[in-house]
Amino acid sequence: MSESIKKQYTIGVDYGTNSVRALIVDVSNGAEIASAVFDYPSGEQGILLDAKDPHLARQNPADYIEGFYASVVSAIEQAAVGSEFTPESVIGIGVDTTGSTPIPVDRDGLPLSMNPEFEDDLAAYAWLWKDHTSASEAAEITTRASEGDEAYLDKCGGVYSSEWFWAKILHCKRTSPRVFEAAYGWVELADFVPGFITGNLDPANIPRGICAAGHKAMFHPDWGGLPSAPFLNQLDAGLAKVAEHYRADTSTCDETVGGLTEAVAKRVGLPSGIPVAVGAFDAHMGAVGAGVKPGTLVKIMGTSTCDITVWPLDQPLADIPGVCGIVPGSVLPGMYGLEAGQSAVGDIFNWFVRQLVPGNHSATGDPHVSLTREAEKLRPGESGLLALDWNNGNRTVLVDPLLSGLVVGQTLHTTAAEMYRALVEATAFGALTIINRFESYGVKIEEVVNCGGIAEKNPMVMQIYADVCNRPMKISRSAQTCALGAAIFGSVVGGAHPTVSAAQQKMTGTKETVFYPRESAVKVYAELYRLYEQLHDAFGTSNSTGGIDNVMKDLIAIRRRVSEDANESC
Amino acid sequence: MSESIKKQYTIGVDYGTNSVRALIVDVSNGAEIASAVFDYPSGEQGILLDAKDPHLARQNPADYIEGFYASVVSAIEQAAVGSEFTPESVIGIGVDTTGSTPIPVDRDGLPLSMNPEFEDDLAAYAWLWKDHTSASEAAEITTRASEGDEAYLDKCGGVYSSEWFWAKILHCKRTSPRVFEAAYGWVELADFVPGFITGNLDPANIPRGICAAGHKAMFHPDWGGLPSAPFLNQLDAGLAKVAEHYRADTSTCDETVGGLTEAVAKRVGLPSGIPVAVGAFDAHMGAVGAGVKPGTLVKIMGTSTCDITVWPLDQPLADIPGVCGIVPGSVLPGMYGLEAGQSAVGDIFNWFVRQLVPGNHSATGDPHVSLTREAEKLRPGESGLLALDWNNGNRTVLVDPLLSGLVVGQTLHTTAAEMYRALVEATAFGALTIINRFESYGVKIEEVVNCGGIAEKNPMVMQIYADVCNRPMKISRSAQTCALGAAIFGSVVGGAHPTVSAAQQKMTGTKETVFYPRESAVKVYAELYRLYEQLHDAFGTSNSTGGIDNVMKDLIAIRRRVSEDANESC
Repeated sequence: MSESIKKQYTIGVDYGTNSVRALIVDVSNGAEIASAVFDYPSGEQGILLDAKDPHLARQNPADYIEGFYASVVSAIEQAAVGSEFTPESVIGIGVDTTGSTPIPVDRDGLPLSMNPEFEDDLAAYAWLWKDHTSASEAAEITTRASEGDEAYLDKCGGVYSSEWFWAKILHCKRTSPRVFEAAYGWVELADFVPGFITGNLDPANIPRGICAAGHKAMFHPDWGGLPSAPFLNQLDAGLAKVAEHYRADTSTCDETVGGLTEAVAKRVGLPSGIPVAVGAFDAHMGAVGAGVKPGTLVKIMGTSTCDITVWPLDQPLADIPGVCGIVPGSVLPGMYGLEAGQSAVGDIFNWFVRQLVPGNHSATGDPHVSLTREAEKLRPGESGLLALDWNNGNRTVLVDPLLSGLVVGQTLHTTAAEMYRALVEATAFGALTIINRFESYGVKIEEVVNCGGIAEKNPMVMQIYADVCNRPMKISRSAQTCALGAAIFGSVVGGAHPTVSAAQQKMTGTKETVFYPRESAVKVYAELYRLYEQLHDAFGTSNSTGGIDNVMKDLIAIRRRVSEDANESC
Repeated sequence: MSESIKKQYTIGVDYGTNSVRALIVDVSNGAEIASAVFDYPSGEQGILLDAKDPHLARQNPADYIEGFYASVVSAIEQAAVGSEFTPESVIGIGVDTTGSTPIPVDRDGLPLSMNPEFEDDLAAYAWLWKDHTSASEAAEITTRASEGDEAYLDKCGGVYSSEWFWAKILHCKRTSPRVFEAAYGWVELADFVPGFITGNLDPANIPRGICAAGHKAMFHPDWGGLPSAPFLNQLDAGLAKVAEHYRADTSTCDETVGGLTEAVAKRVGLPSGIPVAVGAFDAHMGAVGAGVKPGTLVKIMGTSTCDITVWPLDQPLADIPGVCGIVPGSVLPGMYGLEAGQSAVGDIFNWFVRQLVPGNHSATGDPHVSLTREAEKLRPGESGLLALDWNNGNRTVLVDPLLSGLVVGQTLHTTAAEMYRALVEATAFGALTIINRFESYGVKIEEVVNCGGIAEKNPMVMQIYADVCNRPMKISRSAQTCALGAAIFGSVVGGAHPTVSAAQQKMTGTKETVFYPRESAVKVYAELYRLYEQLHDAFGTSNSTGGIDNVMKDLIAIRRRVSEDANESC
């Protein structure tokens, strides 16, 4: 009888932009008993950059493998100290990752970058979600798909993004044909890791999660899976090869990829055979870890945000332009997963701190803390500044990676703290734009649950979001909702809970502190938001009568040409 | 006979925004034998600020008096070392100042701020040129003058500025009636200093220079001097009182105010009775010191710029909209003085360095040097950034103090040096906008002579100006053209030269280094300038079909209301 009350645990492994985290969770109550982070050793904070092209962002797949071993081993070591945890009490593993982060792999499913022949070619590495080199290819896919008979784009907001699977692969085919030719298949990081640790790497057979497939690769049952071979080959002759080594079916994350292999189990000190759930993107699993349900929007706030909600499959739902994904089963089985997002949030704050923070804020401690201390004293509207949050393009609702940042209202007295606050406000306006788009298509957003470091640590940001969005802002109880979400799926494949919803009931919650909108701030921000909307439309849409939507793009075109000229003359 | 070959000197005293400089010049060749600077001790870098209103900028008139004594004494001490200079060889004194910088004075012509009763009232101090508190009054004057019968605005670009005489006094009357009532008259700093040192302070009789009167107080022979009493009283009942104690005639700077008083002469160690020329604004005298003549545009580059050229009185000249002054005799006798300007240039660079420069640029030495070192490596267009140079409003050609700064094109990789260069480029685009305006009204600009610290010290700035304006940029030989110009007028009233032009021939020149436009840069900047024009028109003119010209003003209106609400609730 003692067996039945023995604690059971799952491990959620969360691959972020700069590091991977392993989280060990008690399946009975969601208690997080151990957590370990491994920073990717390659590149700049784990990202391989190209000084000549600010849009390029790649990662080293070897970091992912090393990161699994290191983070899981470290978490297990921690868990074993002073608790009843034993490796044998782990009943399941879940994995979430960034995405779309496709990796070109060989016939065995191993990344081409691990082959010495390709180690010098950045195209052979993982194409990180925020790689925007394929903007023109994305535009081309949008055009072709719009002209064709199939409704390939109807489920992803009507615009294909440069952050996604096919745009990246098409760009690779054209700019690094050697890598494209050598790639037997392309595997999303979210599928690669579960495949690697369970020994299911054959590109043609590796289970493909509906989350990555549906949101990024235009996989949908309506047209029998991936886009047709003629469509792909029309984009570029031979592109359909990628679809040939891709399973015809997809899986939801309550399904099992397989059991932990002997080799991997040995490396990390766990029993082999532990069931591993199908992988999904960090934000989608994070939404689950934050308790997503119909009416609840979960914002995963990190370098960028993913904004996730769900909608029952049996209720009517229009296609929503500018919302980048509507995929059955991508978040919770039995529900549409609705995905939107902001291309940069924490990244904008970090950029500002890295490039433009003056000495008085960086002299002692964290500049974010110092700037926030000053910025939180400002009243809404007091700085006279207004910014657009497009330093990394705009993912929702404009879906345009070639947009850029803007700040207006500077005087000769404008301070760094005022600029910092204006950037925070800009991201809040971006958040409201997404909520408004959902609601104008009937998807009511009754509450917002925030997760991620910014939500955890910066009450000023949360208060501004509450005031701008005029909705209470809650914060997920867990600081690691993505990893927790992965652990929840681990608990389902491990048999601890019958459904994902049942697991959420036991394992998730929000904090007691809730940020409520303040009436006077709401009023001022409503005014500022109208101005934000004016700039948004003037710079971001060609419908604008102002005719200045060319400015940001012309600047980028000039920059590119100048850089190319410089390279040629070298 | 030895008397005739004895060296003769004049002293130019130049009142800038943060300090006053005395320059002793050899009238035979313009050699500058001694120079001394006195930093105004009051306020922040000599400027009295109000934390609640970023538009307020006042100065302490006591600083001006102390500054005259201190700078002249120090210059004389320097000159006496190792030269044939003696105080007795000083044959004349000239004075130039910032402006419009009106000072409310009592019946004796002394500033009200020097009366203990008013020492706590900022309205009783000097209203520095860059005080923009009277934006609404300026707009009101523009409206009334446009409606009336007299062409009061035709000689100042069609728009009255908040930087100018009547707008400031009207604002004082409405917001500080106690000061307005107590003021027997209002005297421009350019008239106050020559009056003070020659004992001609009676507000009703103090000689009024045509430069200040014509450019800032709407004084013109066509309508018999200042605007009529009915016009002034229609603006605000009782405002005409200011015109009652104001001479009916004006003077050019080749005229003498009087001789140095015994008291002042004793304080500075000069003989009494030395003739003092009528004062004028720094930029106007600076243009003279840089050799201004028809076809030559002189740019005095400091915290802001003044752009000055001249045009013969006997040749046809249209009124030029957006050019803030066309006044006969204001620069050279016998010529129209044409004045335009940029509201902030060095101020923008200094603002950036003060507020937003990161540690790596400020750690060692001058951040301007460090930022320039990095920024000059960039090619035109390479940063993808574009800025508007309106952090202090726009003086020419939009004449709108309620405009503000803007930067567009930021990515997550944008550096401080890229921002710095974009701000430099923005001021160059502003400079080109002025040149284009002159030329489109027939005033050809054949060469540009730059003066001031930025022109002297920063070759990158000059090269960018040459490339953007597609004209060679010359630099005045003198680093102190304003003070040199004042000394030139001192040499004319002192009898060393028969005319100002004759004095210029002997005493001015340009440096050997000339910055020529580079073809490839000219091309790229022509493209960027077209984008600048788009932003300029979209944010700065109501003609724009885009309808976003409200954005900057709405932001300021919101800021003001929020600040007022905050004050009320305190």
